[in-house]
Amino acid sequence: MSTFAEDTAVTLAGPGRFRTTIAEGWDIAGVPNGGYVLAAAVRAMLASTNKADPITVTAHYLRPATPGPADITIDLAREGRTLSTLSASLRQGKGDVIRALGSFADLAAMEGPTLVSQAPPVLAPVEECVAVRPQEGAAFPPPFAARVDARIDPRAAGYLQGSPSGRAEIAGWLRLACGTAPDVVTLVLLADALAPPTFNAGIGPAWTPTVELTVHVRARPAPGWIAAAFRSRFVMGGLLESDGELWDSEGRLVALTRQLALSPRL
Amino acid sequence: MSTFAEDTAVTLAGPGRFRTTIAEGWDIAGVPNGGYVLAAAVRAMLASTNKADPITVTAHYLRPATPGPADITIDLAREGRTLSTLSASLRQGKGDVIRALGSFADLAAMEGPTLVSQAPPVLAPVEECVAVRPQEGAAFPPPFAARVDARIDPRAAGYLQGSPSGRAEIAGWLRLACGTAPDVVTLVLLADALAPPTFNAGIGPAWTPTVELTVHVRARPAPGWIAAAFRSRFVMGGLLESDGELWDSEGRLVALTRQLALSPRL
Repeated sequence: MSTFAEDTAVTLAGPGRFRTTIAEGWDIAGVPNGGYVLAAAVRAMLASTNKADPITVTAHYLRPATPGPADITIDLAREGRTLSTLSASLRQGKGDVIRALGSFADLAAMEGPTLVSQAPPVLAPVEECVAVRPQEGAAFPPPFAARVDARIDPRAAGYLQGSPSGRAEIAGWLRLACGTAPDVVTLVLLADALAPPTFNAGIGPAWTPTVELTVHVRARPAPGWIAAAFRSRFVMGGLLESDGELWDSEGRLVALTRQLALSPRL
Repeated sequence: MSTFAEDTAVTLAGPGRFRTTIAEGWDIAGVPNGGYVLAAAVRAMLASTNKADPITVTAHYLRPATPGPADITIDLAREGRTLSTLSASLRQGKGDVIRALGSFADLAAMEGPTLVSQAPPVLAPVEECVAVRPQEGAAFPPPFAARVDARIDPRAAGYLQGSPSGRAEIAGWLRLACGTAPDVVTLVLLADALAPPTFNAGIGPAWTPTVELTVHVRARPAPGWIAAAFRSRFVMGGLLESDGELWDSEGRLVALTRQLALSPRL
């Protein structure tokens, strides 16, 4: 079992109730990563429906998670023939950490017309990219970098050396550091695994807390690296969006992601 | 009071419980529009928090709404200093029509750095655009077109005359037909008010049911027309996304929207 699967495992605790343990090591600036926490809730949703794949999942982030036990409550709103929809809340001690909604389906059984007008991001080969490694005793890069292996495209790696590109964009290759091939739940994690694009626009490195994250899983990923590209077009009024694409090793779009975050005060 | 405000009004029915009436005339192919239904839920959420503005709202669509009474249940997950988050469900008779999550804030009180890398869509003047008018006895354009005044940019209006542009894009001007200036709740409606972009790519006109709709409200709109531009980049595996931008008459982005829909079988 992969570290990721172990660290997002859930156990049934009663009707619509699950337990999980938020593990150490997935944190950024001391707070467990938002994609990681949502992945645990998605596991509980998957265990509560007859569908195999999350196709759209949204989480609102209420309080920072902390390593330790958490309770997940699931409400199956509708189990349909094609789609099932569930609500989830993940709670620790004092209150809800996230509230989530998800719709699930069997991606392999779905069909329809194909019209794709966009190509995968053009990235330098993995070996020419810049590896993000956690630094002992330093807040940045964070411990999370030991869980998700990120290789940043040289054109977007300036933020790592204090020379941001000036464009609110980040792109690179991602995979689980434990070596497990990506599955649909991994995509939920990878939707929130790169530094905010704004780090390359001189806004940060600084805490950019996620208000809401939505992940559309569009296909089951092939084994191998995931190509990721994120950008922020509108930083204004204390808020920013981060729009992302995840592509698999066969050049297929596997997820579209968007989050709304609070922008750091400069 | 505007028709839109009247037709989305909610009345308190108990702690966390509201009543509304899904009105006639907001329907497309016999089904009340998804943005319209979500707007009623947003009114109930707004009545349950001390914040003035929805900043990110997501709805999952479970069953078609029908004109008539509906019950809305609200759960305030967290009332914070800057943000408040609420769950909502809108139910009619047999079950939930939508489940929603929203985070709310006071947009006028928020501040931070400004970095905007994209300009408003370039549209022909309103008087050179093609008005979408409902046709008596015809399914398309639908009755909804009498509630939202849509003027389609000539380059994206081909679908109305059976000669789609070939690109999965649609753009034009939008306003409430009742003449009321747009507010933040109007943006939730307008997030789902244009025909699917795929109508211009030869996929439809056909029923393209929304699975999930997320609206980021980024600013309170100025009075006047809203400039709207939507596109679908990835039609595949029975699903498609529609990504939209709404800009106000002062050239400011006021909302980013994305929905996941089931693509029509061709």
